[in-house]
Amino acid sequence: MTEKVDTHEIFVEPFHVDFTGRIFMGVLGNHLLNAAGNHSQRRGWGIGALNETSHTWVLSRLSIEMMRMPEQYERCSIRTWVESVMKLFTNRNFSIHDAQGSPIGYARSVWAMIDMQTRRPCDLLSLYDGDILKYVVSEEDNVCPIEGHGRFRFRDAQFVRSIDTYYSDVDINGHINSIKYIEHILDLFPRESFVRGIRRFEIAYKNESYMGDTLHLYRQDGADGVTDVEVRKNEGEVVCQARIIFAPTEQNNETTL
Amino acid sequence: MTEKVDTHEIFVEPFHVDFTGRIFMGVLGNHLLNAAGNHSQRRGWGIGALNETSHTWVLSRLSIEMMRMPEQYERCSIRTWVESVMKLFTNRNFSIHDAQGSPIGYARSVWAMIDMQTRRPCDLLSLYDGDILKYVVSEEDNVCPIEGHGRFRFRDAQFVRSIDTYYSDVDINGHINSIKYIEHILDLFPRESFVRGIRRFEIAYKNESYMGDTLHLYRQDGADGVTDVEVRKNEGEVVCQARIIFAPTEQNNETTL
Repeated sequence: MTEKVDTHEIFVEPFHVDFTGRIFMGVLGNHLLNAAGNHSQRRGWGIGALNETSHTWVLSRLSIEMMRMPEQYERCSIRTWVESVMKLFTNRNFSIHDAQGSPIGYARSVWAMIDMQTRRPCDLLSLYDGDILKYVVSEEDNVCPIEGHGRFRFRDAQFVRSIDTYYSDVDINGHINSIKYIEHILDLFPRESFVRGIRRFEIAYKNESYMGDTLHLYRQDGADGVTDVEVRKNEGEVVCQARIIFAPTEQNNETTL
Repeated sequence: MTEKVDTHEIFVEPFHVDFTGRIFMGVLGNHLLNAAGNHSQRRGWGIGALNETSHTWVLSRLSIEMMRMPEQYERCSIRTWVESVMKLFTNRNFSIHDAQGSPIGYARSVWAMIDMQTRRPCDLLSLYDGDILKYVVSEEDNVCPIEGHGRFRFRDAQFVRSIDTYYSDVDINGHINSIKYIEHILDLFPRESFVRGIRRFEIAYKNESYMGDTLHLYRQDGADGVTDVEVRKNEGEVVCQARIIFAPTEQNNETTL
């Protein structure tokens, strides 16, 4: 596999849309992670291959910015590629396209690879003799015109609610799954926000949490419709942080990046 | 479309499996409902076609019984067909097959059609001049060797917990979605139950609930690993009832129907 960019087809199922008929952000996130997983897999860098050498990918950041969200029964495609590789992190980008191929949104992500025994990060540049560098796209192929991941500063976050975690929250590794955090975070917002629609969603994964952990959600409202959310567990350890930007007015394909 | 049985392919995605690596029952339920939706759609009985005449399908019962649950990265297929049509209900059955075509489980469902204005059930036998009867399979094609839907009798159900409903619980009709109830119900059980695995899951949908409703979950443990769960809302109105039968010992493909 010498090609650098993959295309992953998606279909928006009825139970995967919210009350406005748009895909849930968590479901879209899941599709992006599947696209990423397939892309790695086909190049020998997938979870299966890595498990044999006891390494695994860990998602650190994900930022999604949409001009519009795909709607029920829509067929879309996701293109994904590796933007860059550093010693401990790799940047992977995405573009989301409608059935005609026009872009309707973009996403950026940051991944680390860890040794499953020690849980410590690995040197990506030395693993498999730097093979991963073969898949970094050239600058002109890296079309991802959205801002990079922001920085979080929680100064006066207000406690909103605590939630207990159960069976349905947990993935095959026994961790609360990355997508479930997105659901729990968006559940902090009222109905009206989703009528306007989400323009941008960012999340930074900081620490794992586990089935049975109680999550405490804190919210900090900023200017221009920006809200930051911090999820802490048990004694206050930060699990993840998110930034949500809702569209200023009702979103009907009119948002531009 | 004169063929009566459809086949719907599924792939078990990483975020769709639980900590044991088996597909979540809610995700499997979603695949069954998608298979049903496609089957109806292709025969002119889908939601889109019905909406034009202001009718819609409502799921009343769903019972799923598995010899084993599909596992991460597995490719399976779902076959679905109409078993029978009565005036106010239709019975739709399913079989779930592994990649070699061998059955690994079955499901039964009951659907009503309602008029969206009056919310009252319609006469299926007179709608479109009884066209739906063309799709009822012959007896020999109705291979679904699992018990019918059981009857619920709640005599000493114990209150377990109340949960608030939010944005992520709600479908495009503004109702708490059928699949989310399955998640909330299974979240009542401890980790150990899922190590054994679910052998049979039944649910009866009684009344709709809406974003913001508080759901109260009651549990009644019976003999032979059978647990019944009743979900009530607000002042005690019954929303749905479920029966869960876990495998008696750790499930490793050894359960037989």
